[in-house]
This record gives sequence, structure tokens and C-alpha cells, in this order.
Amino acid sequence: MPETPPRPAPSASDVDAGARSVGIIGAGQLARMMLGPAIELGLTTPVLATDPAESAADVAARVRPGRHDDEQAVRALAAEVEVITFDHEHVPTAILERLEQEGATAVRPGPAALVHAQDKLVMRERLTALGHPCPRWWRIGTADDVAAALTEAGGRLVIKTPRGGYDAHGVMLIDRAEQAQDWLAQHGELLAEELVPFTRELSAQVARRPGGEAVAYPVVQSVQKDGVCYEVVAPAPGLDSAAQQRIQGLALAIAEDLGVTGMLAVELFETADGEVLVNELAMRPHNTGHWSMDGAVTGQFEQHLRAVADLPLGSTAPLAPVSVMVNLLGGAAEDLAPGARAALAADPALKLHLYGKSVRPGRKIGHVTLLGDDAEELLARAHRAERLLIDGPASPAGP
Amino acid sequence: MPETPPRPAPSASDVDAGARSVGIIGAGQLARMMLGPAIELGLTTPVLATDPAESAADVAARVRPGRHDDEQAVRALAAEVEVITFDHEHVPTAILERLEQEGATAVRPGPAALVHAQDKLVMRERLTALGHPCPRWWRIGTADDVAAALTEAGGRLVIKTPRGGYDAHGVMLIDRAEQAQDWLAQHGELLAEELVPFTRELSAQVARRPGGEAVAYPVVQSVQKDGVCYEVVAPAPGLDSAAQQRIQGLALAIAEDLGVTGMLAVELFETADGEVLVNELAMRPHNTGHWSMDGAVTGQFEQHLRAVADLPLGSTAPLAPVSVMVNLLGGAAEDLAPGARAALAADPALKLHLYGKSVRPGRKIGHVTLLGDDAEELLARAHRAERLLIDGPASPAGP
Repeated sequence: MPETPPRPAPSASDVDAGARSVGIIGAGQLARMMLGPAIELGLTTPVLATDPAESAADVAARVRPGRHDDEQAVRALAAEVEVITFDHEHVPTAILERLEQEGATAVRPGPAALVHAQDKLVMRERLTALGHPCPRWWRIGTADDVAAALTEAGGRLVIKTPRGGYDAHGVMLIDRAEQAQDWLAQHGELLAEELVPFTRELSAQVARRPGGEAVAYPVVQSVQKDGVCYEVVAPAPGLDSAAQQRIQGLALAIAEDLGVTGMLAVELFETADGEVLVNELAMRPHNTGHWSMDGAVTGQFEQHLRAVADLPLGSTAPLAPVSVMVNLLGGAAEDLAPGARAALAADPALKLHLYGKSVRPGRKIGHVTLLGDDAEELLARAHRAERLLIDGPASPAGP
Repeated sequence: MPETPPRPAPSASDVDAGARSVGIIGAGQLARMMLGPAIELGLTTPVLATDPAESAADVAARVRPGRHDDEQAVRALAAEVEVITFDHEHVPTAILERLEQEGATAVRPGPAALVHAQDKLVMRERLTALGHPCPRWWRIGTADDVAAALTEAGGRLVIKTPRGGYDAHGVMLIDRAEQAQDWLAQHGELLAEELVPFTRELSAQVARRPGGEAVAYPVVQSVQKDGVCYEVVAPAPGLDSAAQQRIQGLALAIAEDLGVTGMLAVELFETADGEVLVNELAMRPHNTGHWSMDGAVTGQFEQHLRAVADLPLGSTAPLAPVSVMVNLLGGAAEDLAPGARAALAADPALKLHLYGKSVRPGRKIGHVTLLGDDAEELLARAHRAERLLIDGPASPAGP
């Protein structure tokens, strides 16, 4: 396909009135799942891809090769579009700050907001200052800091690298100070948090436009497996409407306080007293929102594009009383096609989303969703499909 | 983007087990709207495009330049994929017959079925032989045939070119034999039909796999404007469940009788006595099924790909009691973006689908859909969005 031709720099009013082109930095599955909605909205969405075999690079009409931490590559993408946005959080803040200062291309979310999803120490400091509920946390600069925090926290700590972590990477549970030694030497500073005795994990997603218009999705329940999002029920079972609204309000307040543009996911711990504590922030479509592709009037990928392109936001209303999402994490089957056929045959209502990635154990390679009335029944069906896909059609879940 | 690399010819069992690659001949909006579902299903879908500015060519990762009536171009696409399918009906039957005989690439729908959507005389002859309800019709080879048919039909006839027509093209209402003279000289044979005094137009869509598995969508009501599909309500208001099932049964029978693979649309006239007559057949996703992209568990574009790839078919269940679709036909606004923003702002539940085509009067450039409970209310909202998009935000529909 032809590359996007050069275009004149947009005027501020062009951008304010809604962009027609949004460059996506990173070409993973989140970028991939933006492509369909972008086609329908008529948005041009070139992607910056490190490798042509990446999930989005293989199916995008416009691919610019380059790394997210290569300023020239980021600039080349930015020069093609009115807005840049992200498939992940790993673009160096300094590159984005320079682009934003130059003003030719809008950066959404902007670096001043994005840093709270990039740097967990910055996030904890800011949320605490704003009075948003967090686990107890400590800034760790020395071995003595670790020992002191361990004592204060009652003998166990969750240690996190401030930058670069994702899923289970960059997170470690320790009960002896020396366990943090290597990471401390490597990163200089660490974040330590109390191990929250949570009853379950929730996720609250909102979308916000540059001017402040914002909408909230139903708060969902998520289950992790080995530190990776695995199962989501939307809305979170047993969460009454007052609690739904309170938590949506928290997520909307964080989006406003931090000046987020685009989708914001606030991952939360729910505690036995019904309170919530903020675990992580993500400023992009998020695994806990994949249900919305099939289960809401406006899916999160369309919504993110609308928000960063400064188009009016869409309804977040669910299309059914309950939606469930189950991730496909790489397992025994190296070829997903036979299991996919078996899963589609077993459940005509199943919505299958494959990421075009090679299978490696535990790797996110797709997800399935189902809509209906009964979360337990939907989860049983979704997990049956998962087993057919992951273990292959000859697995015990097979016919 | 890289071209699809050559692949070994598939064995029959590969194809039977479900294809991974489907080449699409033609790059209009129907091909375009297959791309999003193809990404989610993990199917590779190169498109054959006459012009790189075509609707699907501009957004597809894999585009092969070439015309649908150029056998070498069609063969080059076929050599890349396991299955070929269609954006339109205009591929010469002989090319498809040769490809099918050679057997390296499956042609779906096959030429023996597709000819009934390509040639209206063949369609009328076959449906009549099968006993399916048609308007009275005449095969016209001479001026005398026209005069005789005019007399039998009561003075007015609908004249159709057997091949090459679409929307309002190739259809003419006459009341004098000489009005058919030019077309008769040009085409050799024409189809003449009585002018059916229909009460409304309906459309019945089904999908069928090569082995015969088939599913039916709710029968919908469609309204034409200047011979172009303009407005659809799903399901058709006031059609009781017995009539729904009877008409679905007719469409399923036609699909089976003709050996259709993929989506089949049966456009129907409903008459005052509640009977239906077959007007046209289309063997591909169809304008009267666009509502299903947002309004059914499995949209017609996903369903067509599943059917032609021989994957299990998906549920056709609607997601709401009523869905409506209104086409965007080119009007005063040359730039759709300002109207799009106004329409999205006015109605957060609106689903907007733009085709990336330049605006010409009456040209299909997009459509909108809405889900809800009340057809009248939904149509009023959809038409408001249509006017904002077509006339621009300064139109009387604006704020």
C-alpha cells in the first residue's frame, strides 16, 4: 500500500474540530483492534511498528517501521498525522514533551498525563496528593528503606519497578530486604506497596476528550492469572448502583485531575469493607475493557479514537445485562485454527478475537466475549471456548 | 505493506476445514466492511482493486491492483488465497468457471450459483422452474416480444438488462415498445417484468456454508430512494412470526436450491394479500443487511467471511428489539467530517460507517445505524444524523 502522503501541518482549529488522522505508536493487539473502528469512522491510522510481523503491522494499511523509543521514528509518524496516540506506555516522556512543545502534532494523552501511567512513583505521589485512595506505599532508594518499609508493612511488600513494567513484569512480592537488592541497583528507585488483602479486583474505565467531555463505562470485575488479566465480568457482579457511581466518579475525577485524553483504565482493589484502592492506571484501551467491543454501544477502541481525535464521545451503554470476556493465553495448541473452528461450532454466539501472534506459553494471543443474562453460565461457555482454542479440539473440552 | 507471500496450493481438506485466506474481488464498501471482521477472525483478506483510491483499497493491508474482468488479475489474486469471494457480481462467469475447474482455489459463491445474481434472465427461469414466487416475466428478444408483453402486462413493463445492472442502473419503466429499442439492440436480450403493485419491499438474508449449514437473519423492511436502498428497519414492522418464518424458509430454500455459499440477500415485494414475490438476488453482503453490523450478534460481513471460509456460522440474533439503518447518499456537503461531528454530538448512540469515498450526488458514501425499541423514533434520529452528514451542520437539522 502507498505510504500516507505528506500533509500540511494542521491548524489548531482543525485539530480542535476533530482530527482525521491518528498515528498509533506501537503495533500490538491494542493498535490492531483500533483498526476496524478507524475504518468505520473514516480515520487514517498509520502505526509505528518495530517488526512487520507485529499484531497490528500485519493487518494495517499504513505501517511505518521504527521503534517507539527512537525519536526520529516517532517524529516521522507524527509528521504524517494530526494526533499521535499509543498502543503501550513505553515511549520516553522527553520525546513526547518535545513534540508537544513544538505543537505541530497533538500528543494524546499528553506527556504530563501519560507519565502517571509510565512511572508508578509519580502516579502514587500524585494520587496521594490529590487524596485518591491508594494502598500504603513507600519510595525506596536504599536497602535501609526496604527494611524499614518491610517492618511497617508487617513483613511483606510488593516491590515494583517505577517504569517499564506490564502484566506480571516488574512486580515482585518480597519478605526479606535483600530480595529487592538487584532491582534497586538496576533501577535506582523502587516503589514498595503493602500487600492489599483485597476481596477482588475491579476496573473502572472512562474516556475523556481534550476539552474535558468524559464518559464512564460500567465498572467491571477482573480476575488475573499469573499477573495477567484473564477473565472479566461486566458489570461487576453484586456492585450496587451507588457503588458503581462512586467508583465511576473516582475514575472520572482521576481523568480530570491528571488531564487524561483518550481511554483511562483505573485498576482497583476492592477490600472487605467495600472500599476501593487504586492499583494501576493505563491511558489507552485496556484488557479489562475488551468486553465493550461486543458488549457496549461504543467499544473502547472506537471510543479511544473518538476521544483522541476530539470527536464527540459515544454511548457506553451495555447491549446486554451481562458481558464476559476471557483471554486466550498461549498453551498447548500452536495452531489456533482447529480450536477456533471447534469453539465457533460449539457456540454460535461466541465472539472470537485473534491477535495474529505466534503462540508462546502464557502470551496473550486473543480473547473471546459472550453476552447474556447469567455471568456463571457465560463464563462456563467462554472457558469452554478458551480450552478448545488453547488446548486444541482434542482436549477434554472437545466434542 | 508487504504483499502476501506465495503459499503452497491448499489440499481439499485444508479448505474443508476452514480457510485462513479469502481474496476479495472488488474493493468497494462491501469489501471495506469485511476488513474489520477479518482482522478479528485472523483471516488474511487481500483485495483486488481497480484503483488505489477505492473504498477498500485505501484501508486494506493487502491490495492487488487489477480489474475484476481481467483474467490474469483475478488469477493472481486467486493464487494468493484458499478462497475467493466478491464485493460485487460483475466478474465474468467464464473466468470463475475455469478457476473452479482447476480447483486450486475455491470460488465462493461458485459460478453455478453466482450466475443467478449476475444474469436476471437465468434467475427468473430457474426460480420459476423451482416454483419460487416471481412477478410475471417475459424473455424479450425482439420488438414484437416487447409489444406482446406490454399488452399482456396491461400497458406498462419494467425492463431490465440481464447483466451489469445495480441499484437503479439497468432498470427502466416503459409504456411504449420503442422505449426498449436501444437496450434491446445493445444487449440482444432483455428481461421484462410486470410492475408489481407492492405494499412494501422486504429483504430476507441467509448465510450458507459449502456443506449446507445455513442460518437466516430476521426479515427486514427496506425503502428505496431513486432505486437505491435508503432505509431499513429490522425486523420488518408488523410481520408476524409465521410470516417471518415462511419468508426465511423461502430464502433458505433458494440458497439451498441454487447452492449458494456466503451471504444471500433475497429482495422481495410484499403484496396487499400478504404474499411475497422475489425481486432480486444478491450473493454477498447487501445494503439491506448493514443493520446487522451493529444490531446482530454476528454482522453480515463477519458472517459472509465465515461462510465462504467454511467456518461455523454465527448467531443471527438481534441485539435489540429494533434496529434501523439509513444510507448516506451524497448531497450538498463535500466534506463529511463537520456533519459527522455534529451527528455524533447530537446522538451518542449513533453508529457511523463512512466508506472513504468522494461525494457525488446520490452516491452511497456511508450509513448510520441505531438500536432501540421504537422504529419511528429511531428513524427520526437516523434521518436527523443523515441530514447533518449530507447537508452539513449548518442545515436545518443542525443545532
